[in-house]
Amino acid sequence: MTSAISLFTPVESDLAVLTETLKQLVGARHPILYAAAEHLFGAGGKRLRPAIVLLIARATLPQQDISAKHRRLAEITEMIHTASLVHDDVVDEAGVRRGVPTVHSSFGNRVAVLAGDFLFAQSSWHLANLDNLTVVKLLSQVIMDLAEGEIQQGLNRFDPSLSIDAYLEKSYYKTASLLANSAKAAGVLSNVSDDLADHLYGYGRHLGLAFQIVDDVLDFTASADTLGKPSCSDLSSGNVTAPALYAIEEHPALAGLIDREFAENGDFESAIALIEDSKGLERTKDLARVHSRLAVQHLDDLPPSESKQALIKLADYVLSRAY
Amino acid sequence: MTSAISLFTPVESDLAVLTETLKQLVGARHPILYAAAEHLFGAGGKRLRPAIVLLIARATLPQQDISAKHRRLAEITEMIHTASLVHDDVVDEAGVRRGVPTVHSSFGNRVAVLAGDFLFAQSSWHLANLDNLTVVKLLSQVIMDLAEGEIQQGLNRFDPSLSIDAYLEKSYYKTASLLANSAKAAGVLSNVSDDLADHLYGYGRHLGLAFQIVDDVLDFTASADTLGKPSCSDLSSGNVTAPALYAIEEHPALAGLIDREFAENGDFESAIALIEDSKGLERTKDLARVHSRLAVQHLDDLPPSESKQALIKLADYVLSRAY
Repeated sequence: MTSAISLFTPVESDLAVLTETLKQLVGARHPILYAAAEHLFGAGGKRLRPAIVLLIARATLPQQDISAKHRRLAEITEMIHTASLVHDDVVDEAGVRRGVPTVHSSFGNRVAVLAGDFLFAQSSWHLANLDNLTVVKLLSQVIMDLAEGEIQQGLNRFDPSLSIDAYLEKSYYKTASLLANSAKAAGVLSNVSDDLADHLYGYGRHLGLAFQIVDDVLDFTASADTLGKPSCSDLSSGNVTAPALYAIEEHPALAGLIDREFAENGDFESAIALIEDSKGLERTKDLARVHSRLAVQHLDDLPPSESKQALIKLADYVLSRAY
Repeated sequence: MTSAISLFTPVESDLAVLTETLKQLVGARHPILYAAAEHLFGAGGKRLRPAIVLLIARATLPQQDISAKHRRLAEITEMIHTASLVHDDVVDEAGVRRGVPTVHSSFGNRVAVLAGDFLFAQSSWHLANLDNLTVVKLLSQVIMDLAEGEIQQGLNRFDPSLSIDAYLEKSYYKTASLLANSAKAAGVLSNVSDDLADHLYGYGRHLGLAFQIVDDVLDFTASADTLGKPSCSDLSSGNVTAPALYAIEEHPALAGLIDREFAENGDFESAIALIEDSKGLERTKDLARVHSRLAVQHLDDLPPSESKQALIKLADYVLSRAY
């Protein structure tokens, strides 16, 4: 299995610079935020979002070094992503993420709310100062979508009547919107054609969906150790994802268990057994595969380059995490 | 004593429309957010910020009705202000504001963080879609300043060595930046000269400082009933404001009480007594008066109109609250 890091070879040194820049931007003036920034940007995150922006920068302008605006856009995507994680953890009262204690469990709700707001505020400011209204609109849409996704997830818990379409919409808001809009924004900064910009959006959208779908598989299959959080945490907290939705089609009794929020002894164990006994996980992996392939098709118009190859391989890598 | 509402006569019907629009924009799709929006935008807020934007729109373009962009800007200022209040209340763990229970005490931390994020996200999106990069930059600076102000206040508690300049800087971040930058943005949308835009910024800045300084007086002088929150809540939570800073110059012992965070029995009562025995409150009112007058001077270049008169009277009204 390839690691994400080795795929990022064409932009490896750029990502190292980005990490340092982020720590400086966020932590420069406030000791507590510095600690939070070290915690957030030092803890071996995959930096998937900035890597995609930087790879698209190289793939669309192969003759040039990556521009300052592309670098700033890459930083903004990681700030937005991190801000939303920090606030999600407050909302979900999560204690651990990727095996590392969350900001709110390490520093308290106060600092977590402040740090998230500060990251959102910094990203808005840096965004405005990219001096490109199209890019501002694309990324402000992401911030709207993240809030919408978090609200949908927060308000529609334990709903077994969710359709797969509604599940995909939720996954778009939560994960794919940022990848789609920042991939397109990277193209806009390279002055690509409208058509190519839309394809880059399509790449990010389908890659993001595949990524989220695989994450939802891993929540059922990975041990707490691998994933860095307890297994089946989605279902137990009422976040009903594709494996459960498919399993309900085979075992309608599962809907009842979810609907009563696993109120009776053994409900949760029965639910897991029904999902394992179904084709839910296989069908979910198939769904991820569809979106991974669609992502790659959107790259057809990009000229060949090492960075284009990395973007293609990334779509395979996302799938490989589920096996 | 004039009420703020009667000053807003030139834009009274516009403010009524704005309140309904805000409830719709925020609460349209989510029942819990609808409840929070009713709570936030229904509870007799003064709507100072949108009123200033609307009055400047009328004063700078006296021959026209208020434009859709000015109305949207007015809504954005109230969204940003409300978002920051909601998150401040989570950070400060405040139970009551303006006599009304806070969102986090009524609906819990989860909904308060979500509602604040949703309001910030909506404001970013509407801002980007004003299609004016200058306005985007002005308001994204406000969002940065609010985060900076909240962090400064959160991290520098119980610091009796704060200078009056540092206190004014904190007050600028917390309150005046939004008034200053949105007043300027209202002028920018009216295509005023750069010089007039800067004067509008100056008006908002000094009015905002006067407003905050008076608020800090009221925290010491108003009963819990009038202000809607317990008196002296700033000092007790470690937020050292002008009355205490001036009082320290007369009674250096006060610094020690603050520095040890009122750890010993009677410390807090002694501190209040020292402040009441000093010229702190009088000098603070004088400081507010200076900024109120400076605000009015910045309006000299505006042509005469009913709205200009309202902006001038507003600066008097802000002071009158302290008497």
